[in-house]
Amino acid sequence: MFIGQVTGTVVATRKTTNMDGLPLRIVRRLTASAEPTETFVVAVDVVSADVGEYVLVASGSASRNTHLTDKRPCDAIIMAIVDTWQIQGETIYQKQG
Amino acid sequence: MFIGQVTGTVVATRKTTNMDGLPLRIVRRLTASAEPTETFVVAVDVVSADVGEYVLVASGSASRNTHLTDKRPCDAIIMAIVDTWQIQGETIYQKQG
Amino acid sequence: MFIGQVTGTVVATRKTTNMDGLPLRIVRRLTASAEPTETFVVAVDVVSADVGEYVLVASGSASRNTHLTDKRPCDAIIMAIVDTWQIQGETIYQKQG
Amino acid sequence: MFIGQVTGTVVATRKTTNMDGLPLRIVRRLTASAEPTETFVVAVDVVSADVGEYVLVASGSASRNTHLTDKRPCDAIIMAIVDTWQIQGETIYQKQG
Amino acid sequence: MFIGQVTGTVVATRKTTNMDGLPLRIVRRLTASAEPTETFVVAVDVVSADVGEYVLVASGSASRNTHLTDKRPCDAIIMAIVDTWQIQGETIYQKQG
Repeated sequence: MFIGQVTGTVVATRKTTNMDGLPLRIVRRLTASAEPTETFVVAVDVVSADVGEYVLVASGSASRNTHLTDKRPCDAIIMAIVDTWQIQGETIYQKQG
Repeated sequence: MFIGQVTGTVVATRKTTNMDGLPLRIVRRLTASAEPTETFVVAVDVVSADVGEYVLVASGSASRNTHLTDKRPCDAIIMAIVDTWQIQGETIYQKQG
Repeated sequence: MFIGQVTGTVVATRKTTNMDGLPLRIVRRLTASAEPTETFVVAVDVVSADVGEYVLVASGSASRNTHLTDKRPCDAIIMAIVDTWQIQGETIYQKQG
Repeated sequence: MFIGQVTGTVVATRKTTNMDGLPLRIVRRLTASAEPTETFVVAVDVVSADVGEYVLVASGSASRNTHLTDKRPCDAIIMAIVDTWQIQGETIYQKQG
Repeated sequence: MFIGQVTGTVVATRKTTNMDGLPLRIVRRLTASAEPTETFVVAVDVVSADVGEYVLVASGSASRNTHLTDKRPCDAIIMAIVDTWQIQGETIYQKQG
């Protein structure tokens, strides 16, 4: 998995029928120090994340191991919203609220 | 998935028999800001996209989860035509017409 | 898939038994403009391509979806010989003969 | 697999239900000479590694082939704690204790 | 697959139980001209290669398609020992002995 930030949304009405109703988010990959990178993926959001939130993205066949995405042509999902992470005892990020 | 632009077509008459009839498109990857990159893939088009259209490409085992591509030796598909996408509230692209 | 050119052959007599008899080719990846790159893969050739020919390579689990490679420890195949491809209406390559 | 060092921990309370209870670690990839790189992954720890330990990470569908991770949307696991490794007869790393 | 050279060995006593007894080798990726690169993987050796030998490495789900590695959390195997390879008719490498 990698840590990313939800930065946007994609709308696509013409698509393979088995992708109907799955929300598509644009996620920007972060470094372990929470710096933004120039790497983006489009992921199916199975945890209802908001734009701006820090999330975990699972890629590849892993992304079909949820009820929403089982047997869908989906190669990336947002599978968790990050509360906090630490590197060598230092808190890099702590979700507010 | 990633956002790309359909830029071309590949014709191959001699191929594994279970790829017969599947349209092969060349897709150029775009950045999240819709800038073209130098990364291209050849993908099976399951949504009848036109050259020039902005599309979503799914890679890996995900690409066999459609009726057209089930059990085919295919590692990338065009699975949606993009209508619009937004980054932090700003519309980056809006399909015309 | 990606477009490549067959540039060589690998011979390996000591190997997992279920790879016996599968021809191994070295394929050089090309750009969409048919320029050679420095990226090479070793692929099982299921379409009897010749050295010099332009081919399509499928990677990952896709490469086991042929009769020859089913259940083999193979992660790349040559699955088609390219006749021609076009980028934005311009023919980049046309097979002779 | 690749050799990495456990450098941190991620906490995520809102996630796909089938990830409940799986410990998430941040692992920094090392070179073969044990130098740290700038590549990090978030992996499910199935061997109870401590921060600082050198580990092996398996990626992709391999990461579901353990009792803990079977059918989970997980794309990377810590599957071993490294005791020692050698390059051309020279010991690069030897676990203390 | 890619061509690599076996350069070392990893020992890990604490690991997922279904990896017991599988030899772990460090393999350095080579270019098509047999130049060493800075890319290394840890692979399960299913063909009993020696340090120094040139081998083929299969990655991803392909690596479970052998008796030794079936259903193991393994993402790379040494599946062949290279005898020789040629690029455009020129022999790049020929195994001695």
